[in-house]
Amino acid sequence: MKRTTLAVLFGAWLLDKLHRRTVLTALLGSVAGAVVLSKSPAEAQSDPLPSWNDGKAKQSILDFVTAVTREGSTDFVPAPERIATFDNDGTLWVEHPMYTQLAFALDRVKTLAPQHPEWKDKPPFKAALDGDMETLSASGEHGLVELVMATHANMKVAEFVGVVKEWITTARHPRFKRLYTELVYQPMLEVMAFLGANGFKTFIVSGGGIEFMRVWSDRVYGVPPEQIVGSSIKTRFQMEGDVPELLRLAEVNFINDGAGKPVGINEHIGRRPIAAFGNSDGDLEMLQWATKASGRRFGLIVHHTDGEREYAYDQDTHFGRLGKATLVDRI
Amino acid sequence: MKRTTLAVLFGAWLLDKLHRRTVLTALLGSVAGAVVLSKSPAEAQSDPLPSWNDGKAKQSILDFVTAVTREGSTDFVPAPERIATFDNDGTLWVEHPMYTQLAFALDRVKTLAPQHPEWKDKPPFKAALDGDMETLSASGEHGLVELVMATHANMKVAEFVGVVKEWITTARHPRFKRLYTELVYQPMLEVMAFLGANGFKTFIVSGGGIEFMRVWSDRVYGVPPEQIVGSSIKTRFQMEGDVPELLRLAEVNFINDGAGKPVGINEHIGRRPIAAFGNSDGDLEMLQWATKASGRRFGLIVHHTDGEREYAYDQDTHFGRLGKATLVDRI
Repeated sequence: MKRTTLAVLFGAWLLDKLHRRTVLTALLGSVAGAVVLSKSPAEAQSDPLPSWNDGKAKQSILDFVTAVTREGSTDFVPAPERIATFDNDGTLWVEHPMYTQLAFALDRVKTLAPQHPEWKDKPPFKAALDGDMETLSASGEHGLVELVMATHANMKVAEFVGVVKEWITTARHPRFKRLYTELVYQPMLEVMAFLGANGFKTFIVSGGGIEFMRVWSDRVYGVPPEQIVGSSIKTRFQMEGDVPELLRLAEVNFINDGAGKPVGINEHIGRRPIAAFGNSDGDLEMLQWATKASGRRFGLIVHHTDGEREYAYDQDTHFGRLGKATLVDRI
Repeated sequence: MKRTTLAVLFGAWLLDKLHRRTVLTALLGSVAGAVVLSKSPAEAQSDPLPSWNDGKAKQSILDFVTAVTREGSTDFVPAPERIATFDNDGTLWVEHPMYTQLAFALDRVKTLAPQHPEWKDKPPFKAALDGDMETLSASGEHGLVELVMATHANMKVAEFVGVVKEWITTARHPRFKRLYTELVYQPMLEVMAFLGANGFKTFIVSGGGIEFMRVWSDRVYGVPPEQIVGSSIKTRFQMEGDVPELLRLAEVNFINDGAGKPVGINEHIGRRPIAAFGNSDGDLEMLQWATKASGRRFGLIVHHTDGEREYAYDQDTHFGRLGKATLVDRI
């Protein structure tokens, strides 16, 4: 098992603070020998990953892209099949001290509380209003779903989009005091741009809400709405007089996490990714689906080990299954 | 109400038989005045719709594309928002004497029958094996779902893809004796290509199975797998030893028809189409969703009136709701 540690920049907001470290582990799928026929587009350009320290992880990305884009190479993959999938929370942006979408839900509870006096005594809502994360956490999945439905459902899709747009352009991270959309990882933005420049189509494949991400993903990541795969609640179409409306119902439609990710990928993309990027147990099956197949494949896990510039929480919280996964044996 | 009748070619297989007629009705959404600032790309090229008779339907397509692609026009739509959705059965390919996917299911029943001796006496299967369409039809939705599950489920996604690939490249239409993929409507292929050349992203939005269509949609329509929205059954991810697999379960996931089409569009595309093309009641809500909104919009209904070169079944079967729809009042 080769683990590569390299310093990376976490977010555009950290561009001025180089030389700290976090860990990126590169998972390489089947690595057939590339037949060198010509200088590849990936090699020809100047450093496409300037925020990455030179090291095996960076090199493995460059090598992979070189191999699959070089016509005539045994590893060559035609452009339409160059599908890369990225987890979002903890892979593209900060997920501590809580998922951003949970922060959104808690803020929504506070905003909506005046219209719901009964929330003052109702368990998950009371905890949310009191900022009592322990009790909130103890309310479990049931409590969380109740919160999500109260804040995400029973409105038109267009209304929800408006609410998210307003929040995401004003709410600030409790520690960094920056917009959440500024807490994105610069090295990963560079990987996405590099893949895009080499004919890849990049998709976000997240446990987060599909409609929540679509509001800002194009602007922040350059990933358009039709390339977002996420969790969703059910919607219903209805005509209101002569006006067609889509209503968000208080019912879970699909949870795009863990074993759900390959299902979501298949439903939305209908092709198998040749590269996947994740950071937690919830990404294990996506990484398996992308890398355990014939042809050149690439998988990468972002580790979080930098408590100063970000959060160090890697092995403690999210890495049980992933740490033991067969995939890791390939490193 | 202006209805425009024009002769069109139905299918590449009919390229040699011009001058027959079917009816295309152009539905125009809000048509704001276009400010003419420059010769548009749409006008500049030679006739992009050579199989269409000159007439209002053809002209309305040309006008729409001119308006939304001309920078500075009040109707201008940026390329990423140029989303066009197409129904498949009866809009892009022949749907008589039965949906092609039903023909596939019936052939599958015959192929699998030796492994299922019990089918000889089981209602929907017996009817399918006997070619008794009346009894099959009488078995209703329940019988149909039973047939679909027996022929589409309980196998790996990759296996299903293989079965469809084999069938679609060999099975022939009972009347025309051609591959089903040859029974596509040439005028509609031209519209799809014309929109694509003008920065549109085209999606298939069909009641048919998403996995069934993806096998051949890219080759036949130039629409890649990630731009197909369709009905689906549930799938489950599981590791078989070290091999990740997606299994097709005998459970309906989503029916992408009627009011389901805007829901499927929203889930998969996350943008509202500015143009939609359909032919039956199942397309009403998609047409409403696409056209009843601000900005320049376009909707088109393919009518089937040519019993010689195709099938004349228009008003009889599919047009109850659509014929009475408010949308039609706009024509």
